[in-house]
Amino acid sequence: MTEAFGAVLERTFAASGQLCIGIDPHAALLADWGLPDSAGGARDFGLRVVDAAVGRAGVVKPQVAFFERHGSAGYAALEEVLAAARTAGLLVIADVKRGDLGTSVDAYGEAWLTPGSPLEADAMTAVAYQGLGSLDGVFDRATAAGKGVFVLAATSNPEARATQLATRADGRSVAAGVVADVAERNAASRAASLGSVGVVIGATISLADFGLTGDSFATMPVLAPGFGHQGARFSQLPELFGSAAHNVLVSASRSILSAGPLGIEAAIDDAVAEVGAACRG
Amino acid sequence: MTEAFGAVLERTFAASGQLCIGIDPHAALLADWGLPDSAGGARDFGLRVVDAAVGRAGVVKPQVAFFERHGSAGYAALEEVLAAARTAGLLVIADVKRGDLGTSVDAYGEAWLTPGSPLEADAMTAVAYQGLGSLDGVFDRATAAGKGVFVLAATSNPEARATQLATRADGRSVAAGVVADVAERNAASRAASLGSVGVVIGATISLADFGLTGDSFATMPVLAPGFGHQGARFSQLPELFGSAAHNVLVSASRSILSAGPLGIEAAIDDAVAEVGAACRG
Repeated sequence: MTEAFGAVLERTFAASGQLCIGIDPHAALLADWGLPDSAGGARDFGLRVVDAAVGRAGVVKPQVAFFERHGSAGYAALEEVLAAARTAGLLVIADVKRGDLGTSVDAYGEAWLTPGSPLEADAMTAVAYQGLGSLDGVFDRATAAGKGVFVLAATSNPEARATQLATRADGRSVAAGVVADVAERNAASRAASLGSVGVVIGATISLADFGLTGDSFATMPVLAPGFGHQGARFSQLPELFGSAAHNVLVSASRSILSAGPLGIEAAIDDAVAEVGAACRG
Repeated sequence: MTEAFGAVLERTFAASGQLCIGIDPHAALLADWGLPDSAGGARDFGLRVVDAAVGRAGVVKPQVAFFERHGSAGYAALEEVLAAARTAGLLVIADVKRGDLGTSVDAYGEAWLTPGSPLEADAMTAVAYQGLGSLDGVFDRATAAGKGVFVLAATSNPEARATQLATRADGRSVAAGVVADVAERNAASRAASLGSVGVVIGATISLADFGLTGDSFATMPVLAPGFGHQGARFSQLPELFGSAAHNVLVSASRSILSAGPLGIEAAIDDAVAEVGAACRG
């Protein structure tokens, strides 16, 4: 039987900690790394981050937009990075924020979550502007294949608040509604581990503003970008997420990547130690 | 000076009518067309639709998910379809529904809206779950290059309603908020034509449910899927969109594509005639 994504993630946390390393080959970072702003540069960048992560951390998260910039050549580069990371035993979250309806959203799920597909990852990020139910086909595919999905709930940028704080007919904020809908879905699947569907919560928000507490995330993994460069400190993890701190995949990109190709191992070691201390604290 | 997307769209409407033909090479349609379920099949399908559209309609809309399924090879196929369509003088809307923040969302804009890029289209669809302001980088890039962006506002699927009908602090529904925010942005750009930023409105919704009227769309193009197979009839266009009927890009996919490779020209001619009659009526 296929192991559920939530169980795989819990094993990864126990073995390698909760750090997730972004793979963000944007133009400025490629220049800093002495790499060309091309599909080949993005590939070399991604493979170097994967090399540095192996044996130090458990999870990487390629930001697909930075590969898509280079068209099909960028996707070919991404395929190499995904394969290298998965072959090395890293969990890979494709940060794609896809969302659509019907056969279209199913096709996105197929692209990223099908065993053996060229863009196979272990999990993907998704957007539910069209309702959590619009992603059902993706969730079903994920569950069947032991894959995960992280749905955007509350993000850190101020211009998101008008939408994410809007009040649904059930009295919840839109963001808390996504979390509640995910919890309901995970409850229905009666998994012994964390559910296969999680949420994305920006680490710089205040949960209370959205009507959320740590307990809201009891059954689900939480992907939390915003640590490091964007302002949240690893040591704040328990304060930010309370009882759910142990479910949080702590995502850092620029604060690690800006160490450059020579400094990245040390930057990962430092981040892993800090996240570990915060989780034990 | 670069011609604004809104002006290009108005010229296209005047010359070729308001029909937009979807290019949706999903597995079932490829089988119906006698094509393999592969990147090559998707390419042949797309090129055949482009051939059929040239001289009959003005706009095509590839659903990118059906190319992404095939990984980098699918993107290479899409690049051929995009280039063929644009070379033939069709306007191309990349239906990608991308959304993100900061340098990531800028990278998506760069991928689809940069003159000379491998995935260059004339416009793209986008999602503003993170707020309309999160897409500013994409809008600026679009305006500078004479490109367009269509932001999801109100969609036809029932599970979308909890989110899209949620009430913002300004009293608007989330969907009407997107429309109002787009109108404000277009007003600021003082274009003589339709704005370069438009919205996506499912043709099977009731505008009134969301607090919208035809006048809400006075300054913006509206991409309206849901005609044909999904239930809206072309003849209902004035009834559905009122005073904005002349701004609507009437999107049909399955109802045209299901005619097969031998019947597609006739299906396009029929749809163009029906849309034209509805707009004149």
